[in-house]
Amino acid sequence: MTDCELLSVDYLLSCAAEEDPAEKARGIALEQTVELPGRAISPAVRERVVGRVDPPRPLGGGRWTVRIDYPLAAIGGELTQLLNLLFGNVSLKDGIRLQGVRWPASLLRELGGPGHGIAGLRRLTAAEGRPLLCTALKPMGSSVAELAEHAYHFALGGIDLIKDDHGLANQPDAPFQARLQACAAAVARANAETGGNSLYLPHVTAGYAELPRRLEAAREVGCRAVLLNPWVTGLDAMRWARDQYGLAIMAHPALTGSYFRSEHGLSPELMLGDLFRLAGADAVIYPNVGGRFGFDAATCAAINDRLRRPLGGLAPAFPTPGGGMDVARAGHWVERYGNDTILLIGGSLYARGDLTAASRALRAAIEPGA
Amino acid sequence: MTDCELLSVDYLLSCAAEEDPAEKARGIALEQTVELPGRAISPAVRERVVGRVDPPRPLGGGRWTVRIDYPLAAIGGELTQLLNLLFGNVSLKDGIRLQGVRWPASLLRELGGPGHGIAGLRRLTAAEGRPLLCTALKPMGSSVAELAEHAYHFALGGIDLIKDDHGLANQPDAPFQARLQACAAAVARANAETGGNSLYLPHVTAGYAELPRRLEAAREVGCRAVLLNPWVTGLDAMRWARDQYGLAIMAHPALTGSYFRSEHGLSPELMLGDLFRLAGADAVIYPNVGGRFGFDAATCAAINDRLRRPLGGLAPAFPTPGGGMDVARAGHWVERYGNDTILLIGGSLYARGDLTAASRALRAAIEPGA
Repeated sequence: MTDCELLSVDYLLSCAAEEDPAEKARGIALEQTVELPGRAISPAVRERVVGRVDPPRPLGGGRWTVRIDYPLAAIGGELTQLLNLLFGNVSLKDGIRLQGVRWPASLLRELGGPGHGIAGLRRLTAAEGRPLLCTALKPMGSSVAELAEHAYHFALGGIDLIKDDHGLANQPDAPFQARLQACAAAVARANAETGGNSLYLPHVTAGYAELPRRLEAAREVGCRAVLLNPWVTGLDAMRWARDQYGLAIMAHPALTGSYFRSEHGLSPELMLGDLFRLAGADAVIYPNVGGRFGFDAATCAAINDRLRRPLGGLAPAFPTPGGGMDVARAGHWVERYGNDTILLIGGSLYARGDLTAASRALRAAIEPGA
Repeated sequence: MTDCELLSVDYLLSCAAEEDPAEKARGIALEQTVELPGRAISPAVRERVVGRVDPPRPLGGGRWTVRIDYPLAAIGGELTQLLNLLFGNVSLKDGIRLQGVRWPASLLRELGGPGHGIAGLRRLTAAEGRPLLCTALKPMGSSVAELAEHAYHFALGGIDLIKDDHGLANQPDAPFQARLQACAAAVARANAETGGNSLYLPHVTAGYAELPRRLEAAREVGCRAVLLNPWVTGLDAMRWARDQYGLAIMAHPALTGSYFRSEHGLSPELMLGDLFRLAGADAVIYPNVGGRFGFDAATCAAINDRLRRPLGGLAPAFPTPGGGMDVARAGHWVERYGNDTILLIGGSLYARGDLTAASRALRAAIEPGA
């Protein structure tokens, strides 16, 4: 077995006084593969299946870093088993945090990554040389007509990506099918008036049987992109949607927050950067520093890097910081994050009342030379 | 809107010194529905959509308990949006733990619960008046022939439910289809010899497109039950599998552990008890107290209660404690947990070498009057 067929995982271990980090690391390698004590398995199985554990290196304060190399044969080429190998059972244990993974080329090819990526989303919106703008149709409880009216005004004002709020599903106030048709038509009408290329992204998250119907319906009305909560549908459903429908996908981080502890879980850049990108997200929403959620500046920078960095043949994906971002600070974020960013600004546009004027002001603030 | 159309959620809030618990609770209600500040929404939307927040009650040490009543209209009858409403965005916030939910009758009817339940699994295994026994085929890295040989000996020894280890997917050492056929045949052969009713539960977790193929294949070879990781496939995939294939489902908790913090996430009994049962699990595996994972005795008792308690018209489901349980202590667990329990014992049987003899000893230990 050659080196390129290994999945190298870097862990941060937090050890209690009586815990031996090397034993803890060996325990992880066994737990995530054979689920038996080391003494109960044959040398052949150990050699072929159990991860190879490097000696842990101390970071001080009971914290250690350790690398485990798993044979790719333990995954069998499936995203579901990859998730299970990475964090299935150890999610139930304490003091284990996955910091990062060195992805083998064959696994990257198998998973495939974004179907459109940054370049593809730029083509769809005809937006070059500047960041893209995204906003959300809200609030839940609004009628279809109200949401479509918002969509129209945002498109008129030049917002590139107009998505449903991720809480809009198929509630009686604005059922999916009616909302889809009205909002797609509203954005098309605005585009016809302005000559613009705004996209409406319906939120398609739904149960197993319903998901394909929503994706199909979105394609039928001419949508080119959708919003999806991959941790709600199962991560592989996003990959399947990418292959089946050809729609660009913006991924939302709903339900993922519990994995992001400093001493437990997965690093946000591994989950929202690597895993979401590998599974086909063209853009990934994350809670920006200084907003109403808690990521720090370094985490945001790390997510941006993981989404955009060269990674096998995978297309780069758009970081989409959001969550309490302000129109007035848009220029600051562009300067900080660069052009290959989607700025997701919702409430701050609504607070200005006139959505078209607010959108135009935002667009002006991020145009080159503005 | 009548009371029975409300979804009442009990939260445990952990507040920093400067945090106002009432404001934090109102923030949750807004975040999980309209995603706008309270001042930005109309009284009509607030009344119809935003949760109604009870006054928080102090528990001491900066901890508070608070109930929020969400209108069912915020869900629209979908399990995916239920998950999002319960914990989508607040998973990204600190100091919020969902303790429990009062389930409205209409939602219970909509979600449906176990297709077989405790009584159904007893019928399938012809096991009455005693707990059921479950074990796992392992380790990953074994050949199909080796796993089938294990399955045969476990069935010969009277283990009721013989499941794949949840890390067995479609790896080259024991590909799904070959393993399925060999293990199903091995268990059928043992049943023919003993007149017993052991079931083989193949592990069917797979990607979106592959999952139905594995379920179909399982049904085709005559399996009556399967093992599934619902947090890997997406929770609604389990419900769909229940409706589509009629197979009994044992659910595994892979990936769920990160939600189980004392001050954040969901209580294990809400996730593994209520949610897994509502979504169709007939049996739910959880890490038993004293094993190699960390649940305490009260949590195990609470999960058992949530799986078995009367709940609308839903069938009760089997608690399946596992994770380092010992043959020698089987009688203790039966006494403690009662007959309506599945004991999942893996490594401890393997450690005894002769799987048939070990299984018979275990079976004898839990037979009534033993």
